[in-house]
Amino acid sequence: MTWVTGADGSAYGVTNLPYGVFVHGEREPRIGVRVGDFVLDLAGAEAAGLVLAAGALGRPTLNAFMALGRPQWTAVRQRLTELLTDPAHRAAVEPLLVPLGEVRLLLPFEVADYVDFYSSEHHAANVGQIFRPGQPPLLPNWRHLPIGYHGRAGTVVVSGTPVTRPCGQRPGPEGPTYGPSARLDIEAEVGFVVGVPSPLGSRVSVDDFADHVFGVVLVNDWSARDIQAWEYQPLGPFLGKSFATSVSAWVTPLDALADAFRPGPKQDPPVADYLRDVPHLGLDLRLQVEWNGERVSEPPFATMYWTPAQQLAHLTVNGASLRTGDLYASGTVSGPERGQVGSFLELTWGGAEPVKLDGGTRTFLEDGDTVTITATAPGPDGTTVALGEVTGTILPAR
Amino acid sequence: MTWVTGADGSAYGVTNLPYGVFVHGEREPRIGVRVGDFVLDLAGAEAAGLVLAAGALGRPTLNAFMALGRPQWTAVRQRLTELLTDPAHRAAVEPLLVPLGEVRLLLPFEVADYVDFYSSEHHAANVGQIFRPGQPPLLPNWRHLPIGYHGRAGTVVVSGTPVTRPCGQRPGPEGPTYGPSARLDIEAEVGFVVGVPSPLGSRVSVDDFADHVFGVVLVNDWSARDIQAWEYQPLGPFLGKSFATSVSAWVTPLDALADAFRPGPKQDPPVADYLRDVPHLGLDLRLQVEWNGERVSEPPFATMYWTPAQQLAHLTVNGASLRTGDLYASGTVSGPERGQVGSFLELTWGGAEPVKLDGGTRTFLEDGDTVTITATAPGPDGTTVALGEVTGTILPAR
Repeated sequence: MTWVTGADGSAYGVTNLPYGVFVHGEREPRIGVRVGDFVLDLAGAEAAGLVLAAGALGRPTLNAFMALGRPQWTAVRQRLTELLTDPAHRAAVEPLLVPLGEVRLLLPFEVADYVDFYSSEHHAANVGQIFRPGQPPLLPNWRHLPIGYHGRAGTVVVSGTPVTRPCGQRPGPEGPTYGPSARLDIEAEVGFVVGVPSPLGSRVSVDDFADHVFGVVLVNDWSARDIQAWEYQPLGPFLGKSFATSVSAWVTPLDALADAFRPGPKQDPPVADYLRDVPHLGLDLRLQVEWNGERVSEPPFATMYWTPAQQLAHLTVNGASLRTGDLYASGTVSGPERGQVGSFLELTWGGAEPVKLDGGTRTFLEDGDTVTITATAPGPDGTTVALGEVTGTILPAR
Repeated sequence: MTWVTGADGSAYGVTNLPYGVFVHGEREPRIGVRVGDFVLDLAGAEAAGLVLAAGALGRPTLNAFMALGRPQWTAVRQRLTELLTDPAHRAAVEPLLVPLGEVRLLLPFEVADYVDFYSSEHHAANVGQIFRPGQPPLLPNWRHLPIGYHGRAGTVVVSGTPVTRPCGQRPGPEGPTYGPSARLDIEAEVGFVVGVPSPLGSRVSVDDFADHVFGVVLVNDWSARDIQAWEYQPLGPFLGKSFATSVSAWVTPLDALADAFRPGPKQDPPVADYLRDVPHLGLDLRLQVEWNGERVSEPPFATMYWTPAQQLAHLTVNGASLRTGDLYASGTVSGPERGQVGSFLELTWGGAEPVKLDGGTRTFLEDGDTVTITATAPGPDGTTVALGEVTGTILPAR
């Protein structure tokens, strides 16, 4: 129970408390935590001595705070819960609450490296059937390791940033042509943000996931399917992805998702030792994809084949170091049903089966289209925890 | 002609002047410029008012200086040339020279995004023949666009950093096995360092290459061929590359290479408009690869099919932004002859044709092996400009 007006019973109650970076009026960007429809100014709270975090809350990104590590993350969260629930603190804390409608939200952390995985079996199988009909839908390596690749960290943008339709080379019957992508798509994903780094030459065990990962964002990994199809052999996606990747403005701390961990799907064949996580836990996050305001899909994150702990162990098994601000995303989240897919490539089966929308039909994204991805997770005592939305609108190609 | 002892006639004369970051004694890391076998302390020079660069030379990385742009880069270079050639400045400048043997060189810039291209036709064709015998050596897209992908920026290390042999999943007749890479390789490359950023949604024209690119480093993109072979379908290389990428400690400014630009190979079919660079100029850099002190290859950078200006235009044609510190590498540099290849995969034809070394034979890298890549370029008036070496020694897997 919080004294903050309207927060109790909302999906942004005191069991949630996601972190972000906001601008209010003329003041410098600062860290805040969301409660109900307010943002608590944490720079102000730390300056007033209400919460202690080694000065890390007085910065314009979450990186310094994320680098402090789990004991500090937990201590700050406990203190914030105390401040927001004990009426004795109301007089001191309430002046630091800013209405959400008055702030502008910024990219909450400086992205170090961005890795994108490909960990939904349904998504990988759908893509395999669409692009390689008549062949086994999954490649031989897929069940042995979490396939992944590096994306462009410099074009990770915060939710709400417009996305300009990219130009590039598109395949054609008489060779490639240059122009705006005609198959612009989304990928609904969940991203994990690394707080605590690891040294070069060392490995992060599946058991150490929660020591390194600070929290979770929603991700829309915008994809130009025509550009991607022409360029991606043999070294993988490049310009078909690198024009923009949107992330939610709120980073949900892992602690807020403690009640959302669920056993993941059985893995067969058995995985290599370094990937064996006992217990084998995924997250019961329920995504919703809205296309111009109409809900077109509900991807279930609990169906992901590879867990975030396995992804992190794989990412570092070769000795690759982690840095504060590393972001790794799950890959497109797709469940077994058509209404559970995380891309329009799948929703329209390669564009062959248009969907009804806006009184017409759609295959891929048109200029002016808006896509919003939201998600909820089970919280303690039957409550619901919302993840911050990730939204973006398509601008015409330049 | 410089008054610096021993610098005239060396490949680090005043026509070179590469930038780096060094530690000397107990002092903080600082920017320096190499002349002969000395490093000129540029933080000290700027503090003394000998050179002006908006305070950017008093930093522990080159990023702030690289962000200033070409007019400032040229002005500082002209001033440094003046200081190092006019005997009138000797008394003020000489105390700021530190013997190279007394310094430790650090990673000279903070890497933003790292992109690796694949722009040597001979390399791509060799790899095609080794991995897809009997099929066309080049894929259909190869002559239409510079194939590239993103690598891991966080594991770019400075020359001299030991490289721990990575572990991972390797393909086997009865499925993958886990263990140290048994096919550890090099990739001799040339890297381009971006100084001036570009905004999201805009393109950088081939004509604007020199406005954005500050300089050149040598790159060894260490590669675990067995890990790479198993993981790379369908999204490209990941752990087979991400354990380490070494770069030279010296960044050679483009101005030092003004005499090294040469027309690149004729491109057929004609390239898309956004890739058409007139004149179409590559760089006459002559690389040397030494394996445990024996020269095993001399890759000629002038044979690269795609030029660095084309690579930059391609990288941004989809509107991807550039950041100061972005590094893009050429891909393995291989010429038409066996003695001109930039990888041991090619030198030993997939390991099938061992080379003689150290009184025995080698296919891939063994623990304790050292590889050093150097390069020279033609300078003005018949002089030679050396690029800083990139070297590394293999440590056993942990």
